[in-house]
Amino acid sequence: MGRDLTAQDLRDLARGAAFLGTGGGGDPYVGRLMVEQALAEGGRVTLISPEEVPDDAFVIPTAMMGAPTVLVEKIPSGHEAVASLRALEAHLGRRAYATMPIECGGINSTMPLVVGARLGLPVIDADGMGRAFPELQMETFHVYGVPGTPMAITNEFGDTTILTAHDNKAMEWLARGITIRMGGAAYIAEYSMDGATAKRTSIHGTISLGIRIGRCLREARESHQDPFQSLIEMLKDTPYRYGRVIFEGKVADIFRRTTEGFAKGHATIESDGDGPPLDLNFQNEHLIARVDGHVRGIVPDLICILEAETAEPITTESIRYGQRVKVMVVSTPDIMRTPEALDVFGPRAFGLDHDFTPIEQLS
Amino acid sequence: MGRDLTAQDLRDLARGAAFLGTGGGGDPYVGRLMVEQALAEGGRVTLISPEEVPDDAFVIPTAMMGAPTVLVEKIPSGHEAVASLRALEAHLGRRAYATMPIECGGINSTMPLVVGARLGLPVIDADGMGRAFPELQMETFHVYGVPGTPMAITNEFGDTTILTAHDNKAMEWLARGITIRMGGAAYIAEYSMDGATAKRTSIHGTISLGIRIGRCLREARESHQDPFQSLIEMLKDTPYRYGRVIFEGKVADIFRRTTEGFAKGHATIESDGDGPPLDLNFQNEHLIARVDGHVRGIVPDLICILEAETAEPITTESIRYGQRVKVMVVSTPDIMRTPEALDVFGPRAFGLDHDFTPIEQLS
Repeated sequence: MGRDLTAQDLRDLARGAAFLGTGGGGDPYVGRLMVEQALAEGGRVTLISPEEVPDDAFVIPTAMMGAPTVLVEKIPSGHEAVASLRALEAHLGRRAYATMPIECGGINSTMPLVVGARLGLPVIDADGMGRAFPELQMETFHVYGVPGTPMAITNEFGDTTILTAHDNKAMEWLARGITIRMGGAAYIAEYSMDGATAKRTSIHGTISLGIRIGRCLREARESHQDPFQSLIEMLKDTPYRYGRVIFEGKVADIFRRTTEGFAKGHATIESDGDGPPLDLNFQNEHLIARVDGHVRGIVPDLICILEAETAEPITTESIRYGQRVKVMVVSTPDIMRTPEALDVFGPRAFGLDHDFTPIEQLS
Repeated sequence: MGRDLTAQDLRDLARGAAFLGTGGGGDPYVGRLMVEQALAEGGRVTLISPEEVPDDAFVIPTAMMGAPTVLVEKIPSGHEAVASLRALEAHLGRRAYATMPIECGGINSTMPLVVGARLGLPVIDADGMGRAFPELQMETFHVYGVPGTPMAITNEFGDTTILTAHDNKAMEWLARGITIRMGGAAYIAEYSMDGATAKRTSIHGTISLGIRIGRCLREARESHQDPFQSLIEMLKDTPYRYGRVIFEGKVADIFRRTTEGFAKGHATIESDGDGPPLDLNFQNEHLIARVDGHVRGIVPDLICILEAETAEPITTESIRYGQRVKVMVVSTPDIMRTPEALDVFGPRAFGLDHDFTPIEQLS
């Protein structure tokens, strides 16, 4: 059952997850090192498809919570998320059959792999965001009715919180407060559910997708193909079927602030041609790309900043003045574009005064 | 065993606890209303002395946590602290034999009475502060080695957190963050311990003391005695044996800010004579009283602002420009003045650049 991930898979996943992180989610390079450490200590990472999970199996997703800008300064050991899963198991009096990601972008694509490797649990090839999002209620799990709590929150000192909230927005609000007090990054186990619910409410195959994206970029470089074109071709037979490079240019301005537990800010990218610049806003992840006031890409579609030659994904904390970049926008799966999904993680959920327009319809 | 408190006891306690609150602790009037409601619904408040508690009995103290300035705007129902005790019982898998205050000043003298009345639990006549203090590690329980966690934190929406911290300062830091996110006031059960530990680490008789202080002030007024003099006489045969009025005057300035989960600020009281004014600093509770730069009273001794004619205690959130007041300083029990106690709640624990000097030694 399932398949064990290879060292090459993990390297590809780190790059693919950075792409799916749309600028946020925390640097998956850190996550890859954690998995490699767990493997070096004798662990295995076994990926299973959602279909392989029994309906009555007990699933506990695991993740890092906090600002990506903090993560790079307060690097986790990998034991924190393990402790969260164990604390939630103890609280609920049930053992987990498997863990899974809540988020397939950034470090949270790899965090459950660390937990799985350390505890000998399989990891379900699916997640609850289909990308990265900054808040805990921005989950398809939430959209389709799963309570996020009881949840466990731990830090590197062994402090543990079991939180039970009256709804998932209160969970986010309270857990964010705890995370801030834990130094801006913490480790969580939440949205525990049975296998049937996991199958119904998750976005399937997103770890594999991350690996495929990473592999595609790597192979394009190795064979001197255009990595952008290769990626757009590859995505066509996935639920993220439409991708387009919407802008090319040079980073002219970047403003980044770690506030309220998030990395918030904006960037300006000057056009390579004569046209006006592209303006980008982010809250951990990129939310909206505008040129001359016109929307060119908007959440929940993926807005990805990539190094112009190699298509290496650039996270918001790594954007630097003078970088030459291309901006790519990718359509998200149908399950993430329903009215109830857009209520939870569409533009207005971030305070943007725009309706969602799919990238396919943006000129 | 024990004795049931009367309606008159509760009224006296509300006033006495306001005195012991040294300006903070939350308005015990609110707490009295909550107890009266519980009594009206058929509950009883049974006070037992620490000596009556079996050594192996399981004790769970209960309290409100947060800024007194918030409490008066977000009034509790009384069920929140009950929920905290029950949540901690469920987490620990043990039922409480009794509850008790962590703090005998302000609303926290009455909060365990509400819990006791609602659950039919006796309340131990003792506490862990001997007054009010703003932070959770500022407890004789902590000073004498009791872990504060696991603790439960609840709010009016039924959100519940079980926190386990690696030390009591981390408990305060994390619980404060949760309390802030819960709107600045929350309800806690913490420092669970056995009867022997409760006896060893608590300040005994402080609920009775609050009742006696309130009764003393009431009877002095009724019999047209000087309430200040009556109180000073009454205190002589208690562990708070030395009291003195250090200043008389009029409130000339008050600055109050609810920040970081506390009510912080300062007040200036103009002298009735020709002398310089008295300067008062507080963090929920009054910390230091200075005249012309000279310390006239300092934490952990009690610094109490009282209405000049009636000796009605005035909490920091009720200090108003123009009030005529007397400032009284009272010595604290020996258990609160040991070097290890002063490390935890002496002047330097509040960032004051002063050593503790007992009121008996201040001119």
